Amino acid sequence: MISVVLIGTGNVAQNMFHAFFETPNVVLEQVVGRRINALDFAMDKTKTTTDFNQILKADIYVLAVSDDAISAISEELRFLKGLIVHTSGGTPMDVLHIHDRYGVFYPLQTFTKGKIISFKSIPMCIEANAKEDLRFLETLGSALSTTVTEISSEQRNVIHVAAVFVNNFTNYMYTIGEEICTENGLDFNLLKPLIKETAAKLSHLSPLEAQTGPAKRGDQQTLHNHLTILKKANQRELYIHLSNEIKRKHGEKL
Amino acid sequence: MISVVLIGTGNVAQNMFHAFFETPNVVLEQVVGRRINALDFAMDKTKTTTDFNQILKADIYVLAVSDDAISAISEELRFLKGLIVHTSGGTPMDVLHIHDRYGVFYPLQTFTKGKIISFKSIPMCIEANAKEDLRFLETLGSALSTTVTEISSEQRNVIHVAAVFVNNFTNYMYTIGEEICTENGLDFNLLKPLIKETAAKLSHLSPLEAQTGPAKRGDQQTLHNHLTILKKANQRELYIHLSNEIKRKHGEKL
Repeated sequence: MISVVLIGTGNVAQNMFHAFFETPNVVLEQVVGRRINALDFAMDKTKTTTDFNQILKADIYVLAVSDDAISAISEELRFLKGLIVHTSGGTPMDVLHIHDRYGVFYPLQTFTKGKIISFKSIPMCIEANAKEDLRFLETLGSALSTTVTEISSEQRNVIHVAAVFVNNFTNYMYTIGEEICTENGLDFNLLKPLIKETAAKLSHLSPLEAQTGPAKRGDQQTLHNHLTILKKANQRELYIHLSNEIKRKHGEKL
Repeated sequence: MISVVLIGTGNVAQNMFHAFFETPNVVLEQVVGRRINALDFAMDKTKTTTDFNQILKADIYVLAVSDDAISAISEELRFLKGLIVHTSGGTPMDVLHIHDRYGVFYPLQTFTKGKIISFKSIPMCIEANAKEDLRFLETLGSALSTTVTEISSEQRNVIHVAAVFVNNFTNYMYTIGEEICTENGLDFNLLKPLIKETAAKLSHLSPLEAQTGPAKRGDQQTLHNHLTILKKANQRELYIHLSNEIKRKHGEKL
């Protein structure tokens, strides 16, 4: 049995709470948060506290708080004995160096308020300052997910940048898609099956193989036609920038 | 019963072939293609021909060929009686004007070689030069899909541009994500659950609501850190362009 204290009340914390709560070999001892109201989600399922001095003993303390709060909260928790980990993609492990035993337990996924998703398919990226704690995180990760992988702070930083492209920037492409639809009285829902299939394609094709469209084909007439349809300067600039990138990338291959 | 002759052998044609073939109220009379080898997929299921003069009589002739071939093939088929439609998102209906009865039967989806997908959830965008043919296309579309919508050539052009953003440009974001992983010895598969969830989020959030990341938060330190990780100039330029766009877009809202 692994005993866990979870510190945090945001989207990541709430999703982790459910994952820990539903995993047979894990006992979720307590959830810790600053504001009593924010602890609602956990109250009827485990102990909670807003007082850092009331934190219970556990095998691991999971700090699921925003990136810029990690350092300060870690400082407040310096009295804790045991392994302490943060859950951030973009924060080095060493931010926790004032503790004896520390590490990272990073779920490579996007979490949404009010939506609980299964951890089974979420890659758990782990790191620790001691071998035995790395093995411990591997055991805990494997209890939650089918994919657990050791990744250094440096590599995690890299994958976090890649994640910005496939998640944040992709979502911005959806935003422009919706904007174009709305500006022209079209229903954005029409594009949703296409969006789903664009992601689903990657299960059997690399993105390089999956690329289609006028830029890939070098179809100048369609590119020109599309630029006349786009009304906003920023939409046109983005269309030109990305089309040139695709032309360059796929021209390289020819 | 609706009788169909399908002209074309590419990804769209092969997917339409399966959809027509499996729809109870549709009889697929014949598949027509230039090269005998390209007709393999249809041969044991219906009649095929490479000779335009051997085309059978049908209620509708579906021209599922590449955009730049539509006009020339339509010319060669000018002797056909009956309704003729193309399946292209980016081509005006009027390219078929030499026929008496013509229209568009556009499945708003991306099709991949060797992957047959269900038409049930694909929005069928229809257009016709006569009211009764529009009704006919509505019936045919409804036999294949749960979503059939009348869209003018102009609107279809607009939705095609929006589709370039959510499909072609999104796939390019995946390409950069893979590139960053490969350059740093990381497995791109780690990002696939994130990619899936980024698309899945749209079922309950608008992309504007779903936006996350350092640019959205105005987190300059992370933005700066990410730029030091990106090694290629084009990756950095794209990162800056898209981050500025997101900042501007979400700044507008503040």
